[in-house]
Amino acid sequence: MNEKVFNVTFQRYLTMIEQFLAQLPWGQDILSQSMSYSLVGGGKRIRPVLALAAAETVGGNSETILPAAISLELIHTYSLIHDDLPAMDNDDYRRGRLSNHKVFGEANAILAGDALLTYAFEFLANPELGQPEQQLRVIREVAVAAGKVGMVGGQVADVAGEGKTLTLSEIEEIHQAKTGALLTVSARLGGVLAGGTEEQVKALTDYAQALGLAFQIKDDILDVVGDSKTLGKPVGSDLRQGKSTYVSLLGLEGAGRELHAQILKAQSALKLFDEGAIFLSELANYIEQRQH
Amino acid sequence: MNEKVFNVTFQRYLTMIEQFLAQLPWGQDILSQSMSYSLVGGGKRIRPVLALAAAETVGGNSETILPAAISLELIHTYSLIHDDLPAMDNDDYRRGRLSNHKVFGEANAILAGDALLTYAFEFLANPELGQPEQQLRVIREVAVAAGKVGMVGGQVADVAGEGKTLTLSEIEEIHQAKTGALLTVSARLGGVLAGGTEEQVKALTDYAQALGLAFQIKDDILDVVGDSKTLGKPVGSDLRQGKSTYVSLLGLEGAGRELHAQILKAQSALKLFDEGAIFLSELANYIEQRQH
Repeated sequence: MNEKVFNVTFQRYLTMIEQFLAQLPWGQDILSQSMSYSLVGGGKRIRPVLALAAAETVGGNSETILPAAISLELIHTYSLIHDDLPAMDNDDYRRGRLSNHKVFGEANAILAGDALLTYAFEFLANPELGQPEQQLRVIREVAVAAGKVGMVGGQVADVAGEGKTLTLSEIEEIHQAKTGALLTVSARLGGVLAGGTEEQVKALTDYAQALGLAFQIKDDILDVVGDSKTLGKPVGSDLRQGKSTYVSLLGLEGAGRELHAQILKAQSALKLFDEGAIFLSELANYIEQRQH
Repeated sequence: MNEKVFNVTFQRYLTMIEQFLAQLPWGQDILSQSMSYSLVGGGKRIRPVLALAAAETVGGNSETILPAAISLELIHTYSLIHDDLPAMDNDDYRRGRLSNHKVFGEANAILAGDALLTYAFEFLANPELGQPEQQLRVIREVAVAAGKVGMVGGQVADVAGEGKTLTLSEIEEIHQAKTGALLTVSARLGGVLAGGTEEQVKALTDYAQALGLAFQIKDDILDVVGDSKTLGKPVGSDLRQGKSTYVSLLGLEGAGRELHAQILKAQSALKLFDEGAIFLSELANYIEQRQH
């Protein structure tokens, strides 16, 4: 039963997101082509889904906050384009298609990333979200989560850590910055803009932090046991790049146990919402079981 | 007399800006080092100066809007770091020092640019600016000016135009996007956040648009007749890169005449403010006469 509710709701969120993205006014110029290539080219849309679900979980309207939720996908997409560049991870494929710079060249890929990041803040400042103080708070939080002490800082630490053996707490710190901060702010954004109480926003934060960690552990596991076709990217790249991962430190079984512990932690943070958080609770199960 | 007022006021603005930048909490990590290397490494600070001066010109307080004014310098600096990358203009020097990627490597230069852009929006959403609706309006305007139809779009068109002969109106369109939009929004930001009337903001817009064009024409002239030591970068690079410029299309003398016409146009837009716009009027003269 819960699983059916989950699937229907997930599909509803995905439809909202894809329709919004599809009606953006992309031009025929190379920059528009490059931006939309990566943005409209698939992806799990976890961040905007988290934001929309958080808004409904606190009793708010997900349609109203949609432009802000979209901004999270713009930021995520820009980060993937830049991460794939030859100077960074040098990945030729992403989501089963050529990475942005392989299609549009390095200069356009850098600039498309820059433009997507900038575009995100245009959406966050959308006049129809209608809650100026809350919006400014969210803009600050997103900027911090995506910036030097968040996502970008985490990527710097990740690149610097290649070939070194890191401790578990060092890995956690890198992931918390690189992927955890933006996932956490996604849930907070939905809660804050939809008028949630501070207690509700705190619960969403605890949930998303554990979910973010689970997401990363699952990524590490899939890099070892996943199917490259289903994943849309090569497996084993962590090993080749000499990266310390949950699997390299805990073993496959240990990583699986840690994954499950984080899922339970995420779900227990939702107690406050009772039945209102069925979707978020099932989303945690989905993260644990995902194959891509 | 006016020139003395101008120099004293310019110095006051520069001191505000440099003090603000110097007290930012830079860490010892490589990302902080890379960001601050380019940000604190000189530059004319024209954009924040424009914003501060615009705020005072409409009768407001420049101190109050300082964090927002700083955001413009962060955006300008990030754009220079990315423009200098090997995949773009491949410049080894900037402001007489090694460019960011020559010191910190390409990956860190890309990420430092990303982090500076993100940091800019944290400042624009500063809770102490105290005018939520106006702030959101400014954030939207800055995002548009810096993004795909503004600065980033202009850079894409600029890179695409290399080696082609462009018309004067094509050059103007590129410059309006690449440098004009951010300069214009700098003046508007100061006017809007300091509580200027729509009429005042319109006058600032007309002024800054002409000033931005003048700035670019002067850049083209300096690339031919400037001194590379004073400029802190090599001269003649437009010619080497096969770029169409005001000088290549109008000749040196014609470009000088067009420069002067734009300066007069900028100054005539200030009539509305009478004596209140002495600084902005003199700033136009400064732009016309600058040697770097």
